[in-house]
Amino acid sequence: MNVAVYLPDIDKTRWWCETLSGLLPGWTVRPLQEIEDRDAVRYAVVWRPRTGDLAQFPNLKAVVSIGAGIDHVLADAELPRNLPIIRTVGADLTQRMREYVALHVLRHHRDMPRQLQAQRETDWHAIVVPVAPNRKVGVMGLGNLGAEAARTLAGLGFATRGWARTPRIMDGIETFAGEEGLAGFLDGLEILVNLLPLTRETTGILDRRLFARLAPGACLINCARGAHLVDEDLLAALDEGSLKQATLDVFHQEPLPSDHPFWNHPAITVTPHIASQIDAATGGRLIAANLRLFEAGDPVPDLAEAARGY
Amino acid sequence: MNVAVYLPDIDKTRWWCETLSGLLPGWTVRPLQEIEDRDAVRYAVVWRPRTGDLAQFPNLKAVVSIGAGIDHVLADAELPRNLPIIRTVGADLTQRMREYVALHVLRHHRDMPRQLQAQRETDWHAIVVPVAPNRKVGVMGLGNLGAEAARTLAGLGFATRGWARTPRIMDGIETFAGEEGLAGFLDGLEILVNLLPLTRETTGILDRRLFARLAPGACLINCARGAHLVDEDLLAALDEGSLKQATLDVFHQEPLPSDHPFWNHPAITVTPHIASQIDAATGGRLIAANLRLFEAGDPVPDLAEAARGY
Ligand SMILES: NC(=O)c1ccc[n+]([C@@H]2O[C@H](COP(=O)([O-])OP(=O)(O)OC[C@H]3O[C@@H](n4cnc5c(N)ncnc54)[C@H](OP(=O)(O)O)[C@@H]3O)[C@@H](O)[C@H]2O)c1
Ligand SMILES: NC(=O)c1ccc[n+]([C@@H]2O[C@H](COP(=O)([O-])OP(=O)(O)OC[C@H]3O[C@@H](n4cnc5c(N)ncnc54)[C@H](OP(=O)(O)O)[C@@H]3O)[C@@H](O)[C@H]2O)c1
Repeated sequence: MNVAVYLPDIDKTRWWCETLSGLLPGWTVRPLQEIEDRDAVRYAVVWRPRTGDLAQFPNLKAVVSIGAGIDHVLADAELPRNLPIIRTVGADLTQRMREYVALHVLRHHRDMPRQLQAQRETDWHAIVVPVAPNRKVGVMGLGNLGAEAARTLAGLGFATRGWARTPRIMDGIETFAGEEGLAGFLDGLEILVNLLPLTRETTGILDRRLFARLAPGACLINCARGAHLVDEDLLAALDEGSLKQATLDVFHQEPLPSDHPFWNHPAITVTPHIASQIDAATGGRLIAANLRLFEAGDPVPDLAEAARGY
Repeated sequence: MNVAVYLPDIDKTRWWCETLSGLLPGWTVRPLQEIEDRDAVRYAVVWRPRTGDLAQFPNLKAVVSIGAGIDHVLADAELPRNLPIIRTVGADLTQRMREYVALHVLRHHRDMPRQLQAQRETDWHAIVVPVAPNRKVGVMGLGNLGAEAARTLAGLGFATRGWARTPRIMDGIETFAGEEGLAGFLDGLEILVNLLPLTRETTGILDRRLFARLAPGACLINCARGAHLVDEDLLAALDEGSLKQATLDVFHQEPLPSDHPFWNHPAITVTPHIASQIDAATGGRLIAANLRLFEAGDPVPDLAEAARGY
């Protein structure tokens, strides 16, 4: 079985080829750019493939995204239609995202940025905040990552809400669904976490209109995709004070360009897309297992639904 | 029933007198300094009383500490012997401490201080850390606050240990007891949280010898009492690199003197004794309830054991 691998970084590409070769004895796994017999390729394992990268393999049976999101695959305008897309998710990815969300919600909840500022000013200034059960926090997107993030926040004692496309019941979490549930979800929310997939419906969802529905002085944590956020609307909301602070892990362009106003904005924390990186060794095992399942014709739970975009 | 109230701040003292008067109809609650008929006083409600403050009331039946610790009461060399001491603990105090411990363990775990430094340098530098289940964290003291803090860390996925004076079993937490258990508890620990009470045995416990048993580059969080820590030993360990970072909420002298080296040490986070302040309204209700229980001769669960010092 022939597999093509593409990541923007060639060293990483070679690492993935070696790892997958070791895990899939008998399969031939090679960097996409170095493949001569294109007809023989059945699978592609990719992160941010370039336009047309996948269309050159006429016999492709499925593509694997190295990560939870598939937006970077769907972004390819020449992507063969109806090609099955397999996501890569696992306990490790979910655990790291729980940590990131818990850390940054707590940071904003306890107003650490202002507390650290007091330390820089040698100011013994106690900032008193409400206790977590009196703090309204909400997670947009209740998939693999969002649902666990919401459960973690509820476990820490926060008054937790969740929003998804379809209705669901979650223990200790107030849930809302669809466009008609959005206003109720946002109403009075003090800390908002975005864990939506990037689709046509969710692009630019974090905008001026949405911010206006939150509690005055709310905080935003975006750990999904940069294109969920309208950058200028965030800057305006922070300047007006309708939002107090934001923590951003993802950006329209990554690495975030060095002249971008987010870098040294006093109310913005920038982290370099580290909320949850798939651990490469674990990711390799998950991808190999998914490829074997797919090849055997067995159900693959991590198969995305390309039609809905995630 | 006559009650004397003392806190270092007279405005706070008046607030507590009013609140307790409202909650204890028929009782007379007054600032300690303004009491004339000392023989009539049966209870004292105090935070950091001065030496001799309590000895002047010959008919005192019990003293209430406004807070979980009783070290500030026992510090009074003229404290009447065998005077029962009632602590003030409650869901609110425990919840706030859980939040503080979760926040600061996560901050050190995910190396936020260095990540924020990268942002200040406009440096898109991803810091990769182990996942929480591979991170050894430990809590010293498994009382009201420490046990909940340890449970919270285990709930976040950390490999969690706990240490107390007497042995116990806790779900998902590896426990150690007494002096003979200390070495095993500390061995290889990467993040250490102190929630011991301040007693003769625990004073200065956070010293050079203890730091040397932790994993190289470990982090320390002290949210119990300043006198648990040997300040110079911490500075030396940070300078040598045997410790990486520390977060301190409590200090030998509070407010921390403005010329103290902790204030602008790059590896130390200073917070102004805010880990968990008793919410005054809740605290008032707890104290009134405990006074009524004691006066009625009913068991008071929050009674400290002065002989063991906590
Ligand atoms: N920063 C990082 O390090 C990092 C790492 C990994 C992933 N991510 C991002 O996190 C995203 C989420 O990952 P996941 O694995 O949790 O995704 P997932 O399992 O596909 O879940 C997506 C969730 O979003 C909801 N949703 C989708 N479209 C919606 C809409 N129009 N309105 C309301 N809700 C909608 C879905 O609702 P239903 O449940 O009703 O279908 C589902 O609950 C990824 O797509 C990726 O962009 C970021
Ligand atoms: N920073 C803040 O805002 C703040 C707020 C509140 C309290 N505090 C501090 O937190 C401390 C702990 O409060 P708490 O209510 O959890 O106390 P607690 O209920 O009295 O529990 C004390 C714990 O420490 C253990 N311990 C005592 N002496 C020991 C020794 N020599 N060796 C090993 N373990 C020992 C006890 O062991 P056993 O269980 O075996 O008895 C117990 O588990 C307070 O004393 C106070 O100093 C700080």
